[in-house]
Amino acid sequence: MGSLNQADVLETNPACLIKPLDPEDFRRQGHMVIDFLADYYRNVDKHPVCSQVEPGYLQKLIPDSAPNNPEPIESILQDVQNDILPGLTHWQSPNYFAYFPSSGSTAGFLGEMLSTGFNVVGFNWMSSPAATELETIVMDWLGKMLDLPRSFLFSGGGGGVLQGTTCEAILCTLTAARDKVLNQIGRDQITRLVVYGSDQTHCALRKAAQIVGIQPLNFRAIETSPEDEFGLSPASLRDAIKADIAAGLVPVYLCATVGTTSSTAVDPISALCQVANEYNVWVHIDAAYAGSACVCPEFRHFIDGVDAASSFSFNAHKWFFTNLDCCCLWVKEPRALVNALSTNPEYLRNKATESKQVIDYKDWQIALSRRFRALKLWLVLRSYGVANLRNFIRSHVKMAKLFEAMVGMDQRFEIASPRNFAMVCFRLLLPPSLHVNNTPSTVLEVANELNRRLLEAVNSSGRTYMTHAVVGGVYVIRFAVGASLTEEKHVRSAWKVVQEHAEVLISSEVWIDYY
Amino acid sequence: MGSLNQADVLETNPACLIKPLDPEDFRRQGHMVIDFLADYYRNVDKHPVCSQVEPGYLQKLIPDSAPNNPEPIESILQDVQNDILPGLTHWQSPNYFAYFPSSGSTAGFLGEMLSTGFNVVGFNWMSSPAATELETIVMDWLGKMLDLPRSFLFSGGGGGVLQGTTCEAILCTLTAARDKVLNQIGRDQITRLVVYGSDQTHCALRKAAQIVGIQPLNFRAIETSPEDEFGLSPASLRDAIKADIAAGLVPVYLCATVGTTSSTAVDPISALCQVANEYNVWVHIDAAYAGSACVCPEFRHFIDGVDAASSFSFNAHKWFFTNLDCCCLWVKEPRALVNALSTNPEYLRNKATESKQVIDYKDWQIALSRRFRALKLWLVLRSYGVANLRNFIRSHVKMAKLFEAMVGMDQRFEIASPRNFAMVCFRLLLPPSLHVNNTPSTVLEVANELNRRLLEAVNSSGRTYMTHAVVGGVYVIRFAVGASLTEEKHVRSAWKVVQEHAEVLISSEVWIDYY
Repeated sequence: MGSLNQADVLETNPACLIKPLDPEDFRRQGHMVIDFLADYYRNVDKHPVCSQVEPGYLQKLIPDSAPNNPEPIESILQDVQNDILPGLTHWQSPNYFAYFPSSGSTAGFLGEMLSTGFNVVGFNWMSSPAATELETIVMDWLGKMLDLPRSFLFSGGGGGVLQGTTCEAILCTLTAARDKVLNQIGRDQITRLVVYGSDQTHCALRKAAQIVGIQPLNFRAIETSPEDEFGLSPASLRDAIKADIAAGLVPVYLCATVGTTSSTAVDPISALCQVANEYNVWVHIDAAYAGSACVCPEFRHFIDGVDAASSFSFNAHKWFFTNLDCCCLWVKEPRALVNALSTNPEYLRNKATESKQVIDYKDWQIALSRRFRALKLWLVLRSYGVANLRNFIRSHVKMAKLFEAMVGMDQRFEIASPRNFAMVCFRLLLPPSLHVNNTPSTVLEVANELNRRLLEAVNSSGRTYMTHAVVGGVYVIRFAVGASLTEEKHVRSAWKVVQEHAEVLISSEVWIDYY
Repeated sequence: MGSLNQADVLETNPACLIKPLDPEDFRRQGHMVIDFLADYYRNVDKHPVCSQVEPGYLQKLIPDSAPNNPEPIESILQDVQNDILPGLTHWQSPNYFAYFPSSGSTAGFLGEMLSTGFNVVGFNWMSSPAATELETIVMDWLGKMLDLPRSFLFSGGGGGVLQGTTCEAILCTLTAARDKVLNQIGRDQITRLVVYGSDQTHCALRKAAQIVGIQPLNFRAIETSPEDEFGLSPASLRDAIKADIAAGLVPVYLCATVGTTSSTAVDPISALCQVANEYNVWVHIDAAYAGSACVCPEFRHFIDGVDAASSFSFNAHKWFFTNLDCCCLWVKEPRALVNALSTNPEYLRNKATESKQVIDYKDWQIALSRRFRALKLWLVLRSYGVANLRNFIRSHVKMAKLFEAMVGMDQRFEIASPRNFAMVCFRLLLPPSLHVNNTPSTVLEVANELNRRLLEAVNSSGRTYMTHAVVGGVYVIRFAVGASLTEEKHVRSAWKVVQEHAEVLISSEVWIDYY
């Protein structure tokens, strides 16, 4: 037992007086970083929205190894300014319209600060009761705002949990669904299980299916069509399920989407649940993006039928003013999650768990350790209030409508798929002269290339940032409103950038080389 | 498209003027929360370390539903103070010695603030190049500090990635190992795969094995013994592997631990890798807790042999001054991770990815979305420097040695298992008189109950917090030094609390009822 050795001899340079959590150092440096970030928000529209750096840029600016001695926060912030900011794509810029938004807010940020500051590890109730209890309360609050059926709330026998991302929510519920079935038919029957989605379902489903050991040949990405506005057809689902059963396979899980990534298409929840329920298939509703809108009564109908689903999730970190990461998942049958994901090592045993009066969230998720994410959601809900949150969402939808209207007035463009929420899919059309003597598929191919070049030009300008999707073979530009700082003027300016670049592209005819 | 409807009519109460990310609101409220947290750290030792609330306490204090109108940050912080703090277990308290530490620091906090403030979603290089590039650089820095073999660094063909937790690191590497084998022997052979650990391995392994579809009967928790100091015996591993192969099964993955949760036991890495490599078994080294110590040359020998492993991880959020969550994972063969976890949807396609000159970390982890965690690690490494980080670790080890020495001087107690790092396992012994006429198993049972009651009494005092483990049937109290604010006086005081309660317990003889 421990005579003095090298480990006891602390190095004696003066820097060794540093304490890692001195309250006054914390205060001084914390204020500096708050000011840094406040200034960042004030000037974020002055940066190119999409980073223009080349691969490997940072290695040229940063030393090869960690410093031996401490460096002051002043130099570090200088380096953040000079070296990191140019390599950021500014998701908080008011000119950001790419992917889906990552809508941060003051309240979301402050909630994360408190959570990071307390730095508790809330794996079970015992390890920090407030973390678990606030989460159950806030999840019921949110569930009520979404008008989820009582069966999804704790007060109705279900319950909600905060995950990092939808990928995790899907992985957890798929594991639960899988094990529910395997516990009946035998663990070794895993190779017979089938998972369903559409060709528009987020790639998270395929990845989760792969992780939990679903055979790749048993993954169904059912084809959608423009006639169904790229929603999954209940008849196609039924056909697929029937064929699988006839082949001796066992249908286990359907992921239905409200607001697909490519075009915000909406699967018909009610009819899909009806089919799935006939075959005892777990239905997860992935409303990662569009779930936020459903707190507004006028959008709630998009999730009508959710009462017949098994689980429902949306990302508060996308379009609900809660900083990354925060995915809200509700399940009707928590027991199914717990059966699949629980662990009970001796070193975590405690009286509260044994009393069965508490929730241990470690059994509702993949990881053991978990952050106190409920704080940020609580701060968002209280700092803004339900009425404002609805208004924020509505103002984004209104701006998307404005953009849609502007596109509609320019005959060189078309709206490529119906707008359901605050995202507009549009494209530049080929001049009618080019349609003559060309097959439709050639016309489509050339139009796709035209839009690819248009998007590249628009994004290279640094003045705005949008991304693309291909829906039913058609390359479309996605314009997703939702950054917290975006105002009407930014939407108008983005459209101007698109028009300017379209003008140049059409008149230059460089792109016609391709054709 | 889109005539005006309800969605366009914003509610008109004055609160609707609130902007969710106004820079000056952000600045004002941010400063308030910094002061709140600085004051929290200043006074954290005045709270009972382990929360003393009863299940359901918070529901009585908080309304049933979210407010319709905004509430000021002042009231929210008041509620945090009054309602949340009593329900926290104060992991940042200097008197916290439970589980493993969650050692926050000013630099770790500031890094998380910057990451939360920028709020970028770094799923691939393109979505925010700095997030990916800083992560690769910092992982190489850390790898060098740990003296990991070059084959784990980007500069040597391997590479590192930041995950949330070790559970995720194990799940990802196990999926990679599984798929490597299944790609050879056929996807439908999943029921033949076997996973290995010891009876001391963290429960994360069993959970990961269950998630990826390993048959429960094919999970081996190989027994350890006091003679091996609860390390996994290479001979036992070989026996288990041979028996499985003879039974027609396929060994696929071994998780070896450096610093087990119960007693910080160390598996003999080198010898285990040798056995595993003979059978092409992926070896993951889980150094979740003790990896941090290996930045000190005098502790580095505990991971000798790591060059023969396939992957290595440790949690910077445990004992490396980086706020939750931050697990550092290195792999020798990134391709194996990418093959198992990659997705390539059209809406994420981009030129940088197609150039193959960049890393897209979404393919190295479970989730698509990911926070810019590298910032906090970068700030920790730069703000403290390598020399100080080593000193911080050494000062904790030194304090653990002090505690160990104090226990050793009190003959009523014993050190229950060897101390390797900054955690001491000890227990109160039964008075020798009670050994007479009792079988060893009765003596053990009574001693276990005695220590259970001692720990309960100690923790109920609120003055310190420790947790327990059962190692080889022996109930031990774990004393883990590592909270960033802990100083020698707190260690001495904790020992005093233990002694006081032991005194009362022994003299009261209430506990003898049990016997």
